[in-house]
Amino acid sequence: MYICNANRMKDKIETFSNYGDTGNGGITRYSLSKEAIQAREEFIRRMEAIGAEIATDDMANIYAIIPGSDPNAKRIVMASHVDSVKNGGNYDGILGVISAMEVLETIVHEKIPHKHPLTAMIWTNEEGSLYPPAMMSSGVICEKFDKDIMLASKSILDGKTTFGEALKASGYIGKEENRLNPFDYKCMFELHIEQGPILEKANKDIGVVTCVLGMVNYRIRTYGQADHAGTTPMKYRKDALYAAAQVLIHLHNELDKLDSELVYTTGEIKCNPCVHTVIPDFIDFSIDARHEDPKVIEQVVNIIENIPKEFAKCEVGYEKAWARETVYFNEELVGFVKDSADELGVSNQYINSGAGHDAQFVSEMIPTTMIFVPSKDGRSHCESEFTSVEECTNGASVMLNAVLKADAK
Amino acid sequence: MYICNANRMKDKIETFSNYGDTGNGGITRYSLSKEAIQAREEFIRRMEAIGAEIATDDMANIYAIIPGSDPNAKRIVMASHVDSVKNGGNYDGILGVISAMEVLETIVHEKIPHKHPLTAMIWTNEEGSLYPPAMMSSGVICEKFDKDIMLASKSILDGKTTFGEALKASGYIGKEENRLNPFDYKCMFELHIEQGPILEKANKDIGVVTCVLGMVNYRIRTYGQADHAGTTPMKYRKDALYAAAQVLIHLHNELDKLDSELVYTTGEIKCNPCVHTVIPDFIDFSIDARHEDPKVIEQVVNIIENIPKEFAKCEVGYEKAWARETVYFNEELVGFVKDSADELGVSNQYINSGAGHDAQFVSEMIPTTMIFVPSKDGRSHCESEFTSVEECTNGASVMLNAVLKADAK
Repeated sequence: MYICNANRMKDKIETFSNYGDTGNGGITRYSLSKEAIQAREEFIRRMEAIGAEIATDDMANIYAIIPGSDPNAKRIVMASHVDSVKNGGNYDGILGVISAMEVLETIVHEKIPHKHPLTAMIWTNEEGSLYPPAMMSSGVICEKFDKDIMLASKSILDGKTTFGEALKASGYIGKEENRLNPFDYKCMFELHIEQGPILEKANKDIGVVTCVLGMVNYRIRTYGQADHAGTTPMKYRKDALYAAAQVLIHLHNELDKLDSELVYTTGEIKCNPCVHTVIPDFIDFSIDARHEDPKVIEQVVNIIENIPKEFAKCEVGYEKAWARETVYFNEELVGFVKDSADELGVSNQYINSGAGHDAQFVSEMIPTTMIFVPSKDGRSHCESEFTSVEECTNGASVMLNAVLKADAK
Repeated sequence: MYICNANRMKDKIETFSNYGDTGNGGITRYSLSKEAIQAREEFIRRMEAIGAEIATDDMANIYAIIPGSDPNAKRIVMASHVDSVKNGGNYDGILGVISAMEVLETIVHEKIPHKHPLTAMIWTNEEGSLYPPAMMSSGVICEKFDKDIMLASKSILDGKTTFGEALKASGYIGKEENRLNPFDYKCMFELHIEQGPILEKANKDIGVVTCVLGMVNYRIRTYGQADHAGTTPMKYRKDALYAAAQVLIHLHNELDKLDSELVYTTGEIKCNPCVHTVIPDFIDFSIDARHEDPKVIEQVVNIIENIPKEFAKCEVGYEKAWARETVYFNEELVGFVKDSADELGVSNQYINSGAGHDAQFVSEMIPTTMIFVPSKDGRSHCESEFTSVEECTNGASVMLNAVLKADAK
């Protein structure tokens, strides 16, 4: 068993946390921004220092490749992203890149024998915070998204600059033939923070990820009548917000009867006209539900699509926004992660991913899996994200040994 | 008994509906806008045509005055506003001005004897739609608002232009000594659309307004924790929106136990961060409650201020935004309106005003009352506002006779 170096991990975590530092313990590092370019330069500097060859593809994804003993063997890649949400933390995404770097550094410094070339990789624009959607580049490369549509995605800040323009300006566009592909790549690992409280509550260091949860997304709408708050007797009102509150509680009551692993969320609510002296005539809210088992998702759909058509004299409607099925990771790779953690004596458990990751798209192209490390208080996408250096290093060590197991097959 | 002229009323309603015509049956006529200036010019043109003298004061309120038989008698004024909300209708405000003009026109054309000088008046910026707050000029003149603060009020459209700048640019600034005041003015009438469904549902032509309802305004807040929608098990969540829905229903359940005349409304809701993949950590919603009886308002306050401190594991807080006491109109003037309607054989009932009007401020300076005419379907502040010419003319006739009764006292 090999282990990674905690001091080197700490140094990288601290260094990368400078790029986009908000001054409040977190970072804002939109994809292809000045700050993201600084992080890319740091990655290249450190990877060239261990003799890695650098390549980029047409979506500006970066590959740092060290040779293996068999020049004809397919590469094994470890990948994540350096971009963040607004006021994000120092771990989401970047920790997967740091750990990939650390694995290569450990292998080079300790001259660990291996057959396959090994790659540390940065995915461009995983968050989609500035140029939606999320997981843009893996979506293009795995043929989930149309590249031309993605290039036309506009900055949410200025509403004008396109992702294509930002890509050109970055100077990181490479050849399309350099893309991750099933002929040159054997398999992929992605290490990520859990973004939830499960590992911490269970006191485990490693989450052996088995799948990305299936989900459905609906918009629920209530239709009322806008009248004056002071002049309309209660009995004549059609209050769309009061109706929406009843619908929300109805959904909670019904969904709570399903499997206890189900998660569902109303995160967004829009109110029209949203004036304190006017009875709302229209409410639109989101509902996002996730579960591994498609049968449970089907029950959720049944509840939503059979919602009573009227609450509080207001008509109620729904629209299916989108859905995805549960994506299971490669069983053999999942086994390598589990065995590595066990053999290293690192506490671990199986876990699923409720969040989306580039790995879920890639898993349809080549064998893929993920490794989770704990998130303090379950927090992510915020400045208070935290995972200790020890936990981070344990994660990198597990990935190192899992990669070597894959290399040996 | 005298009656107003339906054809003249129709002509005025149609003419004024051109100024700010949205093309969809309504108007947008912000105070002091080009469109509002056109309406002012039309008012002056028509009032000069019947020999009225025109004056303006320092808030650009316009007074059209015809003499009475006693040059030393105080004036009787009929007033309302020509400004509208965005995409408003052809009746709110402007109908009170049109009716005031019609009363003067009828008196002049039919040479109706009267002792007091009579005034038709336009209040500047009643709606406050472009330059908040509402009832700005009556607020300044009745010493509810500080004039300098009002002059500094900024356009909600460009965030820069001040009300003071718009006032200067209008060319309508006159002398402060021209302001409505208790030495020169005996009493005020304001005719307005009901803005609610009560008269229509009761099949009455006239609302004899007795008071403007007292009200309280609170902000209710729930505090949760922002976590990832996909990675946070339900049992660990603090969902501020789910809590807010429960609070809203709790308030409805409790407030519905009070007097059936109580009206209360949650028109505004803010959600943070309002992203469909994030559990909301903060909800802030308004609650506006109105009732004539201060004891009922006190019960409302008790319910709000004794709201349970926690719903769905989220802390709940409240903040009192503002309140006003019920403003009763002058009993003698209310009687003149009632008697005029009865004597004209126009169906009528007592009613209160749930909405605010300039008359509520003026009533603290001089005897004041209001006359309501029906609003079709109770609609107002929208393009579909409608009151028939017959109903409008009945309203003007009631005001004419009430003014003459006040003149005779």
